[in-house]
Amino acid sequence: MEHTYRLVIACPDRVGIVAKVSAFLATYNGWIVEASHHADRSLGCFFMRTEIKADSLPFDLKSFHIAFEPIAREFDMRWHISDSQKKKRIVLMASKEAHCLADLLYRWQAREMDGEIVAVLSNHDDLRRMVEWHDIPFHHIPVTPDNKPEAFAEVGRQIAHYEADVIVLARYMQIVPSELCEQYAGRIINIHHSFLPSFAGARPYHQAFQRGVKLIGATCHYVTQDLDEGPIIEQDVIRVNHSDAVEEMVRLGKDVEKAVLARGLRYHLEDRVIVQENKTVVFA
Amino acid sequence: MEHTYRLVIACPDRVGIVAKVSAFLATYNGWIVEASHHADRSLGCFFMRTEIKADSLPFDLKSFHIAFEPIAREFDMRWHISDSQKKKRIVLMASKEAHCLADLLYRWQAREMDGEIVAVLSNHDDLRRMVEWHDIPFHHIPVTPDNKPEAFAEVGRQIAHYEADVIVLARYMQIVPSELCEQYAGRIINIHHSFLPSFAGARPYHQAFQRGVKLIGATCHYVTQDLDEGPIIEQDVIRVNHSDAVEEMVRLGKDVEKAVLARGLRYHLEDRVIVQENKTVVFA
Amino acid sequence: MEHTYRLVIACPDRVGIVAKVSAFLATYNGWIVEASHHADRSLGCFFMRTEIKADSLPFDLKSFHIAFEPIAREFDMRWHISDSQKKKRIVLMASKEAHCLADLLYRWQAREMDGEIVAVLSNHDDLRRMVEWHDIPFHHIPVTPDNKPEAFAEVGRQIAHYEADVIVLARYMQIVPSELCEQYAGRIINIHHSFLPSFAGARPYHQAFQRGVKLIGATCHYVTQDLDEGPIIEQDVIRVNHSDAVEEMVRLGKDVEKAVLARGLRYHLEDRVIVQENKTVVFA
Amino acid sequence: MEHTYRLVIACPDRVGIVAKVSAFLATYNGWIVEASHHADRSLGCFFMRTEIKADSLPFDLKSFHIAFEPIAREFDMRWHISDSQKKKRIVLMASKEAHCLADLLYRWQAREMDGEIVAVLSNHDDLRRMVEWHDIPFHHIPVTPDNKPEAFAEVGRQIAHYEADVIVLARYMQIVPSELCEQYAGRIINIHHSFLPSFAGARPYHQAFQRGVKLIGATCHYVTQDLDEGPIIEQDVIRVNHSDAVEEMVRLGKDVEKAVLARGLRYHLEDRVIVQENKTVVFA
Repeated sequence: MEHTYRLVIACPDRVGIVAKVSAFLATYNGWIVEASHHADRSLGCFFMRTEIKADSLPFDLKSFHIAFEPIAREFDMRWHISDSQKKKRIVLMASKEAHCLADLLYRWQAREMDGEIVAVLSNHDDLRRMVEWHDIPFHHIPVTPDNKPEAFAEVGRQIAHYEADVIVLARYMQIVPSELCEQYAGRIINIHHSFLPSFAGARPYHQAFQRGVKLIGATCHYVTQDLDEGPIIEQDVIRVNHSDAVEEMVRLGKDVEKAVLARGLRYHLEDRVIVQENKTVVFA
Repeated sequence: MEHTYRLVIACPDRVGIVAKVSAFLATYNGWIVEASHHADRSLGCFFMRTEIKADSLPFDLKSFHIAFEPIAREFDMRWHISDSQKKKRIVLMASKEAHCLADLLYRWQAREMDGEIVAVLSNHDDLRRMVEWHDIPFHHIPVTPDNKPEAFAEVGRQIAHYEADVIVLARYMQIVPSELCEQYAGRIINIHHSFLPSFAGARPYHQAFQRGVKLIGATCHYVTQDLDEGPIIEQDVIRVNHSDAVEEMVRLGKDVEKAVLARGLRYHLEDRVIVQENKTVVFA
Repeated sequence: MEHTYRLVIACPDRVGIVAKVSAFLATYNGWIVEASHHADRSLGCFFMRTEIKADSLPFDLKSFHIAFEPIAREFDMRWHISDSQKKKRIVLMASKEAHCLADLLYRWQAREMDGEIVAVLSNHDDLRRMVEWHDIPFHHIPVTPDNKPEAFAEVGRQIAHYEADVIVLARYMQIVPSELCEQYAGRIINIHHSFLPSFAGARPYHQAFQRGVKLIGATCHYVTQDLDEGPIIEQDVIRVNHSDAVEEMVRLGKDVEKAVLARGLRYHLEDRVIVQENKTVVFA
Repeated sequence: MEHTYRLVIACPDRVGIVAKVSAFLATYNGWIVEASHHADRSLGCFFMRTEIKADSLPFDLKSFHIAFEPIAREFDMRWHISDSQKKKRIVLMASKEAHCLADLLYRWQAREMDGEIVAVLSNHDDLRRMVEWHDIPFHHIPVTPDNKPEAFAEVGRQIAHYEADVIVLARYMQIVPSELCEQYAGRIINIHHSFLPSFAGARPYHQAFQRGVKLIGATCHYVTQDLDEGPIIEQDVIRVNHSDAVEEMVRLGKDVEKAVLARGLRYHLEDRVIVQENKTVVFA
C-alpha cells in the first residue's frame, strides 16, 4: 500500500475551506490521491478527508502540524492528520463466541487490515489457543458480578499498557463501565447483533424471531455510556423467513456480524469516520 | 396463467398430514403444480400450501369442501381453498402520496397482479385523475378530527359495497378504527415506511435521519388494533449514508415502499401467507 | 431543489488541480454544496464534479466560461458546466413493453426526475394512450426490415426537432443505426435486460434460464456502435431459483430494469457521469 | 442437530408421487421435519427432498432401501437417502490463496458445517501451517507443466485413500483433468471468482475492471470437463465503482467468494442440491 498522509477535518461550513486547504497542499506540491467532502446543511458543518502521497510533501507530520495550524484556527477546525505507515494499535476484547475474533485475526494475518492487533483481552479462556497461534498475547480477565471494578481496572491497565489506539468489542458480552467509555470516546467499537435501533439489549435474535421480522442484521457502532445508542458506523442485513428457527438466525447472523464489524473497523482504521454529535460521516 | 386451486392448511403438527392430504388428492387424480410445507417446532404447528391444476380434479370447490371436510376435522385444520380464476377484490386506500398507488395501478393494468382493483378510497381528492384514468371508481371521503366516526362508517359502507376481499393502505395516513381492524382481520394490508420495529409511528425517515442509521427500509404488514404491530409479511431495506438528507431518504424510501408493498400484496393475493399468532408463514 | 451550477472536469492528473479550481471558486465567493474527486491511476486521469450555489457566484454561465477557460486550458481539461434549472430535454423511445416507460413517466410527473420528457417515439402504437395522458407528444414511427433508413431518418428528425439532450431507449427493441449513435455519442442511454457482459444480445432471460444462473440483472449503458458494449452506468441483480420459469424471470426482471434505468438516467441528468474510454466515473 | 434421514428424489412428473411417498412414510410413522417439492414443466421432471426424524422410523437405511425400492422403480426415480449423522468426508484442494480455505476450516472447527474435512491437498506448501493447526493432514502435491499426469494420479490416489465424498476446489488454480471430473461427477465443487457466465477463464477481476462493471461476483458450481461451465449451485455479487482498482476488487471479491462457497457447499452437504442436465435444483 502506498505511503500517504490522511488529513481529516470537521469545521463550521463557509466559503473557501476547500480552496484554502488545497492551496496549502498545492503550495507544497502535495499530491492528492483521494479526497472526500461533505457539507451537512442541518448542522452547518463541513467535513473533509484528503489523502496525500507522503513523499510528495517536503515535511513530516510534525512540521505539517505547525504549518497547517493557522488555517485550522482560522476555520475553527477539529482536525487530525495520520500516517498510513503508522498502523493503529488494536486491542480486541472477546468472550466465548469465536466468529468475529477469528475473522479479524484472519484479516490481520492476511494483511487485509490496516492495523496491528497487539493483544486480546477476554473474560473467558476459551479462545486462548486460537489467539496464541497468531503470536498475539491473550489475557484472561474474568468478570463476575462481584469483581467488576477490579476486572475493568485490569482491563484499563492492559489497554494502557498496550497503548491501544482502538478497542474492538468482538462479541464481548460485558457492559463496559462509563469511565472507560469516556476515556476512550470515539475509540471503542462494538458489534451489536441486530439492526439497531431494533432489538437493542439482550438476545436480539430471540427478539427478532418473536417479532417475525423478514430481515435480521448487525450494527457496528462506537460505544458510549448509553448502551447500544452510540454513533453507528456500519450496518447490514440478511434475509430470513418463517423456516429459520432462532438457532438458524444466530448462524446466519454471524456472517453479517463479522462482515459489518470488519467493514466498520476498516473505515475507522483508515480514518474514514468522523463523529458529529451522535452520528457519523463515513467517507467509504 | 394456469387455472389452479390453492389449498392452504394450518393444523397441529403430527405424523401423516401430508400423506393424508396427498393421498386424497391422488385419489382424485389431482395434479400438484406447487407444494410447500412448514413445521414450526416452537408452536407445534404444521402449515401447508398445495396448488393443484383445476381441471385435473373431477369436482368444483363446493364439492371439494364436502369431500375434504372429514380430513380437515380429523387433523383439526384451519383451512381454505381458493380458485386462481376468482380474482380477489381489492379496495385501495390512499391519501396524497402517489407512489404506492401509482405502482399498484400500473401492475394491475399490466396484469402483473393477481387481483381486481375495484375502488380507491381517499381522504384527499388529489389522486382522483390518476385513478379515474384507469376506469376505477374513486371516492373522496375526507377525514377530520371531528368527523372520524362518520368518515369511517362511510369507509366501511364502501368496503362492504365493493365486497372487498382485501383492503390495501397504500400510504393512507389515517389510523383505521379498531372495529374495522377486527372486522377485516387478516385482510387489511399496510405499508409502513420503516424497517419495523425500528421507527414505528410518525415520520420514520426523520427518526432514521436523527439516529444516523446506514440502511432505511419498509414493512408490509397486516393491520391490527396495535398500530404498526401487526404480523409482518415482507420487508426490505436500501443503503443510505451521511450525504442523504431527509428528503433524499424519502425519495429513496419510496422505491422500497412500493416494491415491498407489491411483493407483500402479491403473496397475499396468491394465498401464500398464513398468519399464526403475530407472525406469518410466507410460502414465497 | 436548490439552484446550482455543476462543474464537471476530466483532465490529466497532476498536482494543483483542486487547488486551482477551488481557489477560482473561492475568489468569486462560490459556495460549494457538493464535491467529488477521482484520480484514476491506471489512466493517469483526474475527474472532478463540483456543485456550487448559483446565487453565490457573481456571474452567469456564459461569464463563467470566459473566466474559467484559462484554467481549463492550463490543465488540458475536458469540461462543462450546467445549470440545475435548465432541465435536460429527454426523448424516450419505446416499443410495446410498458414497464420502463411507465416508470419514467411516473417519476417525471411526480417530479422525482431532474429533466423534461419532451416526446416519446415508438415503433408501435400500443403505448400512445399512456403517453398522451401525461400530455406528452407521442410519435408512432414503424420500423420494418424494409423501411429502416427512412424510419431512422424520421427518428433523427424528431430528435432534432425536439432538441433532445438525451435519448432514452426504454426497452426500444430496435438497433439504432451507427450514424445516430455517433451523432449523439454519450447521450443515448439504453437498458439491457441482463447483467452485462452476461447474456448480451437477444432473449437474455431465456439465456439465463438455460444457464441456470441464481441471479438475474439489468444494465444501463450508453449506446455505441458495438451492441451491448457501451460504457456501463449502472447495474443491479435480483435473486432467482430453480422454481422461477422464464416468465417469472421476465416479471422479476422488469422491476430491476426499471430501477436500474431510473438510477442510471438520474445520474446522467444530474451530470454525475463522466465517460472515459469505455468506462464511466459515476459520482453517485 | 437433530438426527434425520434425507430422502432425495428426481423422477418424471406425474400424478401421485407425493401421495405414494408420503403414504409410505406415514405407514411407518415417519415424522417429516422438512419437505420441498419442485415440478419443472419444461423438463417434465419432479424433484423432492424430505427430511424425516430418524428415530420415528422403525428401520435403518438399509431396510429403508429395500422397503422403498418398489416405489422408486414404479416412478422411475433417481433417488438416494442419507443419514444426517454420517458426515460427508471432504477433501479440500487449495493453492496459495488462503481466504476460502481459512473460512471453511473455521466453519468446520466451529461446527457450522455439516461435514468432515479429512485432508487438504495443495500444489503449494504455503498453507500447511494453517491446516495442520487444525489437526488436518496436509499433502503438498506440486503441479508443473511437466508432471501433470503424475501429479493428478497422486491427487486421485489421495482422494481415494481418504474416501472423499466431496472434493472442494477452494481457489485451487489448476485445471482438473477430465478423468477425475468424470469419476467424481457431481462431487467436485469449485468457486469461480466471477459472476458466471461473465468473465469465465483467467483473471476475472481484471476482466471486470476492464469492462467497467458495477457489480462483481462469485459462482459456486460443480466441476465438469467444460471449464467454468458446470451446473451452478450458488452465486452472489457485491457493488463496486470507479474508485475500486483491481486490487480493491480482489479484496472485496474475496468476501463474496468465501460466502458463496460456504453456502454452496452447505447445500451440497445437506443434500439440498439435485443436478438435472446442466442446472441445479437447490432446496435452500
